[in-house]
Amino acid sequence: MTRYHNLAALLGQRIEQGLYPIGVRLPSIRVLSKEHGVSITTVQQAYRELEEQQLVEARAKSGYFVAHRKLRPGLPAGCDMTQCSLAIPQWDLVLGMAGPAQAGETAFGTAAPDVTASSLKPLTRALSHVSQRQHLRTFDDEDIRGSVELRGQIARLMIDGGSRMDAGNILITDGGREALSIAIRCVCKPGDLVAVEKPCFPAGLQLLHGLGMHILEIPTDPITGISVEALELALEQWPVKAILVTPTGQNPLGCHMPIARRKALLELAQGHDVAIVEDDVYGELSYPYPRPATITSMDFSGNVLLCSSFSKTLAPGLRVGWLAPGSYMNRAVHMKYIGTGPTASLPQLAIADFIRQGHYLKHVRRMRGQYQHNRDVITGWVTDYFPCGTRVSRPQGGFLLWIELDRRIDAQRLNQALSDQAVSIAIGAVFSAAGKYDNCLRINYARPLSDEIKQAIRQIGMKVQQLLEQP
Amino acid sequence: MTRYHNLAALLGQRIEQGLYPIGVRLPSIRVLSKEHGVSITTVQQAYRELEEQQLVEARAKSGYFVAHRKLRPGLPAGCDMTQCSLAIPQWDLVLGMAGPAQAGETAFGTAAPDVTASSLKPLTRALSHVSQRQHLRTFDDEDIRGSVELRGQIARLMIDGGSRMDAGNILITDGGREALSIAIRCVCKPGDLVAVEKPCFPAGLQLLHGLGMHILEIPTDPITGISVEALELALEQWPVKAILVTPTGQNPLGCHMPIARRKALLELAQGHDVAIVEDDVYGELSYPYPRPATITSMDFSGNVLLCSSFSKTLAPGLRVGWLAPGSYMNRAVHMKYIGTGPTASLPQLAIADFIRQGHYLKHVRRMRGQYQHNRDVITGWVTDYFPCGTRVSRPQGGFLLWIELDRRIDAQRLNQALSDQAVSIAIGAVFSAAGKYDNCLRINYARPLSDEIKQAIRQIGMKVQQLLEQP
Repeated sequence: MTRYHNLAALLGQRIEQGLYPIGVRLPSIRVLSKEHGVSITTVQQAYRELEEQQLVEARAKSGYFVAHRKLRPGLPAGCDMTQCSLAIPQWDLVLGMAGPAQAGETAFGTAAPDVTASSLKPLTRALSHVSQRQHLRTFDDEDIRGSVELRGQIARLMIDGGSRMDAGNILITDGGREALSIAIRCVCKPGDLVAVEKPCFPAGLQLLHGLGMHILEIPTDPITGISVEALELALEQWPVKAILVTPTGQNPLGCHMPIARRKALLELAQGHDVAIVEDDVYGELSYPYPRPATITSMDFSGNVLLCSSFSKTLAPGLRVGWLAPGSYMNRAVHMKYIGTGPTASLPQLAIADFIRQGHYLKHVRRMRGQYQHNRDVITGWVTDYFPCGTRVSRPQGGFLLWIELDRRIDAQRLNQALSDQAVSIAIGAVFSAAGKYDNCLRINYARPLSDEIKQAIRQIGMKVQQLLEQP
Repeated sequence: MTRYHNLAALLGQRIEQGLYPIGVRLPSIRVLSKEHGVSITTVQQAYRELEEQQLVEARAKSGYFVAHRKLRPGLPAGCDMTQCSLAIPQWDLVLGMAGPAQAGETAFGTAAPDVTASSLKPLTRALSHVSQRQHLRTFDDEDIRGSVELRGQIARLMIDGGSRMDAGNILITDGGREALSIAIRCVCKPGDLVAVEKPCFPAGLQLLHGLGMHILEIPTDPITGISVEALELALEQWPVKAILVTPTGQNPLGCHMPIARRKALLELAQGHDVAIVEDDVYGELSYPYPRPATITSMDFSGNVLLCSSFSKTLAPGLRVGWLAPGSYMNRAVHMKYIGTGPTASLPQLAIADFIRQGHYLKHVRRMRGQYQHNRDVITGWVTDYFPCGTRVSRPQGGFLLWIELDRRIDAQRLNQALSDQAVSIAIGAVFSAAGKYDNCLRINYARPLSDEIKQAIRQIGMKVQQLLEQP
């Protein structure tokens, strides 16, 4: 976070808390500069940021005022009951969402990060250098557990999440997807019951279903995450074998579980001898800094398996993920061997170089700032352009916004209606095995904001309004 | 094949057939040059090749003579009975064989090709160029089915194996291992019975076992491949769901199934409604040219699934394989999605460039020549340095030699004894779930031959002799 970001956040908080009521004149640039010991330019940048967020408005020769704006939209409803489902009918819909965007399409449906940032350029160079200088190594098979350099770097990165690991605790995988697939198979066999958050990201549901697991959906609050209380009731009723949970930057809600609830979840799982598969792909993209500790870091039983990847922090096309499988390392290595063999060396060595040279932390810091800024601006646009009563999540990390529309709207119909405008969204129906989210959608706000994106958000809002007005 | 290769092969054949008996003087260089319409240099190169193979010997001022040499070693025994096994106990041994060689080690145990050839240099350049010029594409997720350019190139390459496919019939995977893993899960569920060749490559056995399949081992002849007769008997007795077979360049025997037997195998499988999973990773490294047609190319039922990769023809570290799943494409795509997600773009685009520019066919042609030459020379060294009675396979493709030692030798003990010399082999025990190959080993002859390799082969032979002489 830069200085002006910090100042903007502070002022924004005071406005939200009502310390500066609507219409009131805000402190002058000069006063704030003195008060906070920052330059005039910094204060100007902070006010510009707040203008973009539509929290303040500038009036010529008078200064800045708290803006008259719509109320902040309500939160999406939590889900009210625990549900168990055997079938996942939405594969065709999920497949339709997968893959690269069409040329000219404004694709809000993916869960891909912004890969256009200039801070990724050294990674391009690293890929090119490694392929030239270490070509024999990149042509040969890598260690089945992955490059020891990269595993060492990952162990160091994981200290921020509270974990004390070394290279020996980590298995490199072909993306986070393989990490998750291996983790689930380490602790479950086909026919077992796995508890998940509701709503849950589509790949997680498809993966569990494809591996032959049964799925138990646990209500998940848009601010505090999975309901530990509902989970406790569920564990007493059902023979749950594992809990798949994303405590930091939940997908699609973007929320962080408070530390106390993480501890309660861990105690509950340990008490029932249930494994936890912790998906931490958005962990390093937490807006609050330092990021919250992982559940894995609180565990001493070896029954918590942490899955992560560079797909959200760097680029999904690299296909490099990792798994810290706790006490299941032997089983995990066997699954890696029979599933795909060793992961390719080239991207591993390039990422290890990128981290070692300090580019990684710089890039991730920059992206956190961009994503947090985009969240505020996009939330403002949704507030402006979507019908009254639209509910919106308040992500604490990542780059995904969950939007709940009027119950009469079918997001799938909305998506079809938008295809003429070359705009696409992720439809809510694929985020639950038991249905319920037909009137919800998820949008990606990773990319640098532009008028094109603003207009696309406006088009979605207008289309929703049209659908509401249709008989 | 170059001209001198052709001439050497012709002369070698005549010697083997007894047209030129041992000790006889061979035609002079001048005569052969006239007879075959080739240059003096070409004949000299051909004779040098035959000398290396120890088929001829030069005598100063007299010319070339058919060499006095040991008889060609016998073939390894086929295996005599069909066996069904539930347990595969050798995972630790297989894991020990996996991964890159130690520095200074002469590793004969891997199944990796020679990646030091200069004809691979354009691939290094392609990797570097693609990572620089198409970096946004390589950072983004690829189509879940893989790059359409590469799938188109593969479809064209597969014409040599008799297949008429297009990009839509092919799914790119993270190496051949994932292709195999998906293919098996397309046609079987855990607990099903899969017929395999005996001996079978270790990753195949581990994969089937790890996926929960039961394994039925079918006797396999070192010249004609899997016994269709034994398979027929087996299909009448057992509820076999799939047959995993490597008809071209079987691993470890290196043999090609004759075309008539491929057809018989296909008819048998169709008659019993059993799927065939055809592993074709060594197909393009067939010494006979053109390569034999795949079983897949003879099938119209869609119940034959072809697995292949660039791991044996180019480099295993690229981790690019493919699957032509016949009528199971939808299921295969779902498994790809839940197992690893899309395969990385960078190596796909680089390989597509490498093929398009004509480097691929050139490289593969060169490697075929190198491997065939190495087979002959290495077989000669084994003949020279191993005890009498050693049996050796006669590979028709690939770069792997299967050696059967005296029954009293335990290859695992041999491998341990060799570790002092930093020499390692693949031990026979891991090539069967039902045991039987404790006295066998597999060696890799991919790399350019050197005195170091010759000495390592000599050391293995001496160690075998020592073990035989121990009480």
